[in-house]
Amino acid sequence: MSVIGDAIPISLFGESHGKMIGITLHNLPAGISLDESKIKHALERRRPTSSLSTKRSEPDPYEIISGYFEGKTTGTPLTIVIPNKDTRSKDYNKDVLRPSHSDFTAHKKYRSHHDYRGGGHFSGRITASLVILGAICMQLLEKRNIIIGSHISSIKDIEDMKFTLDNLSDKKLKTLLNSDFPVVDKTVIPEFQDMILNAKENKDSVGGTIETAILNMPIGIGGPYFNTLESLLAKHIYSIPAIKGVAFGKGFDITRLYGSEANDPFTVENNVIKTKTNNSGGIQGGISNGMPIVFTSAVKPTASIGKPQETVNYKTKESLTYTLDGRHDPAIVHRVIHVINAMTAYAIVEALTKEEGYSWMI
Amino acid sequence: MSVIGDAIPISLFGESHGKMIGITLHNLPAGISLDESKIKHALERRRPTSSLSTKRSEPDPYEIISGYFEGKTTGTPLTIVIPNKDTRSKDYNKDVLRPSHSDFTAHKKYRSHHDYRGGGHFSGRITASLVILGAICMQLLEKRNIIIGSHISSIKDIEDMKFTLDNLSDKKLKTLLNSDFPVVDKTVIPEFQDMILNAKENKDSVGGTIETAILNMPIGIGGPYFNTLESLLAKHIYSIPAIKGVAFGKGFDITRLYGSEANDPFTVENNVIKTKTNNSGGIQGGISNGMPIVFTSAVKPTASIGKPQETVNYKTKESLTYTLDGRHDPAIVHRVIHVINAMTAYAIVEALTKEEGYSWMI
Amino acid sequence: MSVIGDAIPISLFGESHGKMIGITLHNLPAGISLDESKIKHALERRRPTSSLSTKRSEPDPYEIISGYFEGKTTGTPLTIVIPNKDTRSKDYNKDVLRPSHSDFTAHKKYRSHHDYRGGGHFSGRITASLVILGAICMQLLEKRNIIIGSHISSIKDIEDMKFTLDNLSDKKLKTLLNSDFPVVDKTVIPEFQDMILNAKENKDSVGGTIETAILNMPIGIGGPYFNTLESLLAKHIYSIPAIKGVAFGKGFDITRLYGSEANDPFTVENNVIKTKTNNSGGIQGGISNGMPIVFTSAVKPTASIGKPQETVNYKTKESLTYTLDGRHDPAIVHRVIHVINAMTAYAIVEALTKEEGYSWMI
Amino acid sequence: MSVIGDAIPISLFGESHGKMIGITLHNLPAGISLDESKIKHALERRRPTSSLSTKRSEPDPYEIISGYFEGKTTGTPLTIVIPNKDTRSKDYNKDVLRPSHSDFTAHKKYRSHHDYRGGGHFSGRITASLVILGAICMQLLEKRNIIIGSHISSIKDIEDMKFTLDNLSDKKLKTLLNSDFPVVDKTVIPEFQDMILNAKENKDSVGGTIETAILNMPIGIGGPYFNTLESLLAKHIYSIPAIKGVAFGKGFDITRLYGSEANDPFTVENNVIKTKTNNSGGIQGGISNGMPIVFTSAVKPTASIGKPQETVNYKTKESLTYTLDGRHDPAIVHRVIHVINAMTAYAIVEALTKEEGYSWMI
Repeated sequence: MSVIGDAIPISLFGESHGKMIGITLHNLPAGISLDESKIKHALERRRPTSSLSTKRSEPDPYEIISGYFEGKTTGTPLTIVIPNKDTRSKDYNKDVLRPSHSDFTAHKKYRSHHDYRGGGHFSGRITASLVILGAICMQLLEKRNIIIGSHISSIKDIEDMKFTLDNLSDKKLKTLLNSDFPVVDKTVIPEFQDMILNAKENKDSVGGTIETAILNMPIGIGGPYFNTLESLLAKHIYSIPAIKGVAFGKGFDITRLYGSEANDPFTVENNVIKTKTNNSGGIQGGISNGMPIVFTSAVKPTASIGKPQETVNYKTKESLTYTLDGRHDPAIVHRVIHVINAMTAYAIVEALTKEEGYSWMI
Repeated sequence: MSVIGDAIPISLFGESHGKMIGITLHNLPAGISLDESKIKHALERRRPTSSLSTKRSEPDPYEIISGYFEGKTTGTPLTIVIPNKDTRSKDYNKDVLRPSHSDFTAHKKYRSHHDYRGGGHFSGRITASLVILGAICMQLLEKRNIIIGSHISSIKDIEDMKFTLDNLSDKKLKTLLNSDFPVVDKTVIPEFQDMILNAKENKDSVGGTIETAILNMPIGIGGPYFNTLESLLAKHIYSIPAIKGVAFGKGFDITRLYGSEANDPFTVENNVIKTKTNNSGGIQGGISNGMPIVFTSAVKPTASIGKPQETVNYKTKESLTYTLDGRHDPAIVHRVIHVINAMTAYAIVEALTKEEGYSWMI
Repeated sequence: MSVIGDAIPISLFGESHGKMIGITLHNLPAGISLDESKIKHALERRRPTSSLSTKRSEPDPYEIISGYFEGKTTGTPLTIVIPNKDTRSKDYNKDVLRPSHSDFTAHKKYRSHHDYRGGGHFSGRITASLVILGAICMQLLEKRNIIIGSHISSIKDIEDMKFTLDNLSDKKLKTLLNSDFPVVDKTVIPEFQDMILNAKENKDSVGGTIETAILNMPIGIGGPYFNTLESLLAKHIYSIPAIKGVAFGKGFDITRLYGSEANDPFTVENNVIKTKTNNSGGIQGGISNGMPIVFTSAVKPTASIGKPQETVNYKTKESLTYTLDGRHDPAIVHRVIHVINAMTAYAIVEALTKEEGYSWMI
Repeated sequence: MSVIGDAIPISLFGESHGKMIGITLHNLPAGISLDESKIKHALERRRPTSSLSTKRSEPDPYEIISGYFEGKTTGTPLTIVIPNKDTRSKDYNKDVLRPSHSDFTAHKKYRSHHDYRGGGHFSGRITASLVILGAICMQLLEKRNIIIGSHISSIKDIEDMKFTLDNLSDKKLKTLLNSDFPVVDKTVIPEFQDMILNAKENKDSVGGTIETAILNMPIGIGGPYFNTLESLLAKHIYSIPAIKGVAFGKGFDITRLYGSEANDPFTVENNVIKTKTNNSGGIQGGISNGMPIVFTSAVKPTASIGKPQETVNYKTKESLTYTLDGRHDPAIVHRVIHVINAMTAYAIVEALTKEEGYSWMI
């Protein structure tokens, strides 16, 4: 079900090789001028731009087809589509199951009626619509001074510095948002890129982790039982293809500490109650506590690799060695990062709007 | 919002020191005889039973107050309550913020009107109702032969064996469900318990990880974009207090592999398509693939510790050193495990019922 | 599914002859002192108080069991229960299908596992919980000066005056809310009551219509397609047992007018745009236009009558003549009116809160 | 919010004079061949075809842009669009408030940012997408032999015969579905048409009522409290522009009967329990009872009339006499009827699927 959301429900549609992909946003208030430079910028960023990614061109010109009139939202459904151009589909064999792709599960769930070309509706291409959504949501969140940004915290076993209370700032996040290869410690970039190029050379792929921060989050958003901010964010991030882990604050590492080390002691700074550490990642009892919200997502290595792989034919059940031809991303971490930012922005817009109504947006 | 679910929506209520806690299940079909021995057993298991847990007695006798007639569900709302007995509330000071508890965020969200006694609605005690829910859901899933079980995969930095395709079996999971301290490799138990008792002695606490498996899951449940099985499970698990991480299959470790290592090759066994490895944790493209569904949850160290901690008074904003008196759990991992099983069972019932309707339950 | 609502979801439970009935309200903000006199008053009003109704005593003492602490809501689930006292169940035969009751459909839907005693969860008694909900919602709406009131607009073929722009006022609605037998034109009361008593004497029953008005409704609530205020209100009113019609403004009579008669011309009064007439009932394009919202509900004659009726035995399929013993309401119009007010108040709280968030309540 | 539905959520978008209108259906199972002749037929029928309607041509060629592959649904979102052709927008003045249109409420709700041309998203044109939805749903319901049909039960004060247990049959409903001007008693057609033409001549308009029947509805669909079949149907029908009343079975007339007349006595026919009369319209206790489901909707007279009307200018607040130029429908009853059939079909698909899951469709 490609519908999600209560306050600003969205409806996603389209396939990789269909006529167009698109998204409808419902309930967006009237009178908002979309900053289209941000949408373009976001789409641009999601595009593969260098030798680190696949070379298929994906220019992604979008078109607003409803809900926008005289340069402003109308308050009725906003639909934005991206026509598909590069839709050669000769390369795909429906029955040869690509390992760790959705080929097998799609065959089963859709009883072999799925549009298998280029991954169909499972395709990462569909996330271009989410990136548009994210650009709109980030524009809205600016009114609250809420800033979202992420860095590539690891590629395979090479790690970037983590976010800390010291290195996190609005400026830092904005820099990350504007970077093609966002990291905290720039010295790690050559290592990351070598790792990716090396994988590429070996017709292999790598994954990594992405650490995301939300600054200036209002205190008191979320709740206990069924309404935790962790639930909300994880639900949205786990909608993105290739994500296999989501953890908050210190994440799984918190389980290696004693309570006396893990607990975040309270203190007062300029008459404001804060915590000295942020092991909880800005969320206690499921509710934002005013500290930076921090979480890390695990992106599995790209499933499409050039190396020969063992697989079977769905129809004949014969075993075979499958070798993917065509160029494929040796890593998608630096592309998925934009989708993570986008879904985070959308989740926060949802959380705020359910709590406060729509008037903060206008 | 303590309501969740589409097919069998549930409504949770109650506070730690209020009159009673309880849960209402909606839409459960008529004519189901609840196996009350399983409910009792589950509640029993969640109870602290040994020196590893707090000594407050929590007998948890429950009462069915609606939706059950002549030994069967009626099809209308099933409400089950647990009266609170041990509700001494003298030990609590509303304004002294316990580090890494919900005290501060509750003050903020509820403008200091929360029932702070014993954590109020944030209390782990509320999860007793979820454990009842889980017992009912597991009884239902038996009709599909779906079995859910978990083990303590680590306490602090000590690790149990992981689930593998070899050591996972229906029998294994049933044994884990019936164990007071469920682990795969029993030789780790003394180490785990020493670690906990040692923390207790030091007036400190420890956390850990819990690995959960779902066997005999039908293929084809879940979907891409906004409907992934990972989203569904993470949303439910992140509703449980103290959870800070949820990861599927190999989880964060998958990011340290090459694609050629991470991908799960397909093979045919007895004319059935399977994968040779299960790094994806039984989910590909957001959809169950027939392999065991496996995920790991991070349980932070118990926030309540006997050691002195720095904190502030919410009202006066004065700093102070806070020392918790009273006995508290040095670890809750072995109690939370039952809540994780319960919420997993409920999530799977939801997923199946949304797909197939209600008739499978009767 | 006895759950409804997005902003303040409610969960209803209980049966006529079970241990207790009750309701849980979720998401109500913290810090609200419930005006319990209003709750008592509303319950009092729903009670049968005179010869016009059944004589079973229904004192309805309620108890708040969660979400209320030191005289204020806590922000977590508010559960209120009403214990059942008068639960003699000897009068009921599960298999003799009472005409125009839910006996047959309950047998079918619940495969004969329903609690049939006194109507079980179908019982009008369950609406006592809705009346509590309504008293709380009306208290909230007072902060917005929104007033809801209804009158009995007809009993069988005797009609009261309709609401008009001239006779509608805050004061009028308050008077109706405080009346045991609310009508616009008091001279009709003896006729109404004669009609009811006459039906009673004949061991028969009568129905009628109820006209409801909402004053001081903010302009701009609702929307086109799937979000009309008519949809919202009708959905809520049609949840009440015995309702068979809901119509807005002039209702079905508008179909007998020419467009030139039906259209509401715009005018300006004190610099405010209004309509001269209110045939649309305060809603145009599904959205409130600032005029009184007016709708009429049809209440079918009470299904329980003393006259012999033809029916069949569900199990044996034998035809039989059924004579209900026991005293029953010859009319419930004057009791249902309180439930209509309650559900209207709840629907408006929902509409406002989804639009504006929760802060208006506190 | 132009999203509705739980089992098959739909998302509607577009404006009368925008680039295109459209609809996305989510969760439709894979492998369904859409009977496009039915879609075309339904669109054809909704078109104004004679002197009884406006003469603007609306050919409505639609295009499937996602979710359909090799002649079958794929199981992922199905999006169908209808490009707008006739989008001259010179005739509209945003600030002159057309009486009983949504001009005023749209100005208020959307703070004057709505696309006012041709009614924008409020336009009846948007219902063309709903008619497509309906054609798909009716095709699905055929698998269950469920048939939906309606007739014009009145135009102004002229009445057609009502549906009765005698004149209702599958064949009858199919005939109605294939008729341009569906009535039970054909002798009323000239009177209906004269009434409409007469209104047209007077630059006025008329409304009417539409009676709808659902045959072969499974027993046991719906429920008490918040889940009644009346709630479900009314919610959907009240989403359609111009509807001001919805009533079930005998509707408001049931309030004029004694209980002994209104109650539907049970009887046994061919070993099946039925009711002798159907005053309840096939629904008792909110649940389908196996009798024909019957309800009547009130369609207000078309708001657009050629006669001069009093109104005001929204911006200047000046009073003025407004005379609509251009040709407009003197009646829309015979066009709305197709939208009512469509939304009824969709509501029933929702009800069945929530109860039974998706497998019945394939």
